[in-house]
Amino acid sequence: VPCLSEFELIKQLFAPLAKDAPGALGVKDDAALIALPMGHELVVTTDALVEGVHFRACDPPDLVARKALRVNLSDLAAKGAEPLGYLLALALPATRRLDWLEAFASGFAEDQRQFRISLLGGDTTATPGPLTLAITALGSLPTGQMIKRSGAKAGDHIFVSGTIGDSGAGLGILSEEIPRANPHKEYLAQRYLLPQPRMALGVGLRGIASAALDVSDGLLADLGHIAETSGVRIEMDAAHIPLSDAYRAIHGADAVSVVRATTSGDDYEIAFTVPEDRIEAARVAAQSAQTRITEIGRVCEGNGVVLRDRNGNEIDVLRKGYTHFSR
Amino acid sequence: VPCLSEFELIKQLFAPLAKDAPGALGVKDDAALIALPMGHELVVTTDALVEGVHFRACDPPDLVARKALRVNLSDLAAKGAEPLGYLLALALPATRRLDWLEAFASGFAEDQRQFRISLLGGDTTATPGPLTLAITALGSLPTGQMIKRSGAKAGDHIFVSGTIGDSGAGLGILSEEIPRANPHKEYLAQRYLLPQPRMALGVGLRGIASAALDVSDGLLADLGHIAETSGVRIEMDAAHIPLSDAYRAIHGADAVSVVRATTSGDDYEIAFTVPEDRIEAARVAAQSAQTRITEIGRVCEGNGVVLRDRNGNEIDVLRKGYTHFSR
Repeated sequence: VPCLSEFELIKQLFAPLAKDAPGALGVKDDAALIALPMGHELVVTTDALVEGVHFRACDPPDLVARKALRVNLSDLAAKGAEPLGYLLALALPATRRLDWLEAFASGFAEDQRQFRISLLGGDTTATPGPLTLAITALGSLPTGQMIKRSGAKAGDHIFVSGTIGDSGAGLGILSEEIPRANPHKEYLAQRYLLPQPRMALGVGLRGIASAALDVSDGLLADLGHIAETSGVRIEMDAAHIPLSDAYRAIHGADAVSVVRATTSGDDYEIAFTVPEDRIEAARVAAQSAQTRITEIGRVCEGNGVVLRDRNGNEIDVLRKGYTHFSR
Repeated sequence: VPCLSEFELIKQLFAPLAKDAPGALGVKDDAALIALPMGHELVVTTDALVEGVHFRACDPPDLVARKALRVNLSDLAAKGAEPLGYLLALALPATRRLDWLEAFASGFAEDQRQFRISLLGGDTTATPGPLTLAITALGSLPTGQMIKRSGAKAGDHIFVSGTIGDSGAGLGILSEEIPRANPHKEYLAQRYLLPQPRMALGVGLRGIASAALDVSDGLLADLGHIAETSGVRIEMDAAHIPLSDAYRAIHGADAVSVVRATTSGDDYEIAFTVPEDRIEAARVAAQSAQTRITEIGRVCEGNGVVLRDRNGNEIDVLRKGYTHFSR
């Protein structure tokens, strides 16, 4: 009789997450089997998260799981894809307690219900280092419909969903351990801990957006990726960057505040460009998806990203060169 | 002008690995796009590897990359799938030098040529812990043709490709830093550092093997997985376990030596079961794939795995309960 090792326990913990996916083969096999709908292509994305870098050791384990999954779903959303499922590779410190893992698995279970997806497979291993996970999310969309980063053209209008900067403000609040009696602070902390991937908006923007991505590095840096891959220049109006009331209550709404919001990252909103004759269609799509979108600038010929104040002067974004070595 | 961060350098290092895959979008996008051939299904598998656990800090970086990739290709092979490409999630200590990474990337480049696949996407992040990588490999096969673990039936014959135990012996030699003037030792060390996934054999066994998996935990433990998921008992003849001349030269070929070989793992051979009336077809498939296969036992009703000596007596496998918490 083989003994029930710790890894067997972990398998038993994660197996129920795969029970609704016949192709996952009960995660008892080495591989998962996935059939794509006719006329569809596969979209696949992977993200690694490290404790102490992407999340804090004290973060609730169920929210760590849900954020890890949502970060990947957000990538799929920005491409216009619908999620099929995900794989989880987990490197686990030997000291990790089973109750942490149970809560971690329950977070996946919760979001599987919300997003109607399943665990498809995975691998668990020990590590002498921090807990590290890599999630690979699989999605599908009709052939030829993927929204790329590289499609922005001069003359397109730039939009972003939701509000920007909340997550960064939330991390600041959590890190400084400021008392959070204030509902603004509670809201911002939640925006950091549990981003809302814009799945319905992403699907709605198929055939409408010329380029899109999800805002993870910070709006400025991410629009820089569109500028670079599309070979265009991005001009943004600082006054139009959507800031939440909570964000304004904490940081104000002056140029410094806007720069902070557009460089703090972890927003998981969708930034996208739309040709002039498709703007109405984009607004209708956003309304159907019940997602707020805001026009924030224009695509021009040239290169780079510029943030302009009310007078049209370029804001000297001190932290614009800021790159996340740690992310 | 944004500064060229360390992560940009890394991107530049890995971008050429994706140049032949249009769907990888030059790894400049968040996601890769993959079209499946008509009438095919997707097979997907993920494995995490941690420095100090799955490979040694002193292992040549190109071989670390190639083994990480091959471990995943081996999973695809055992399912009968042909590889489409892979994603790489990399958690990198800040102290890692660029020349290590260059050699690491060159290992992927080498095996991409050998296996005719491309990098499809990835994610690089910093870690305060050991270098950790997760590879997700994607493959395809005609719909309905995947070879599962769960298909073994009483009466089937059990086969394994190549020889067993070489990799474990190689790790022992490398760990003990015994001088390796001896060509046997060189061969065994190579078997550990650079396993040979049995891609052609796997494809050839479609429609022939009733169950299959690649030997990673050790032949005994892995056949235990087939026994469990198929609901059968596995009976193996110790005298038939294929041992290389090099392995015999180091460890001999008595019962202790066979137990060592079947519990050491990391072989990346394919173990599979074949119904009696398909044995000739399996031998023809192996010959076409230019891969040696050996019959090692029979599938019976019941459960568990048994190793029998020449007299038919059960060998008391002291280390049979051995499970790799560290793998």
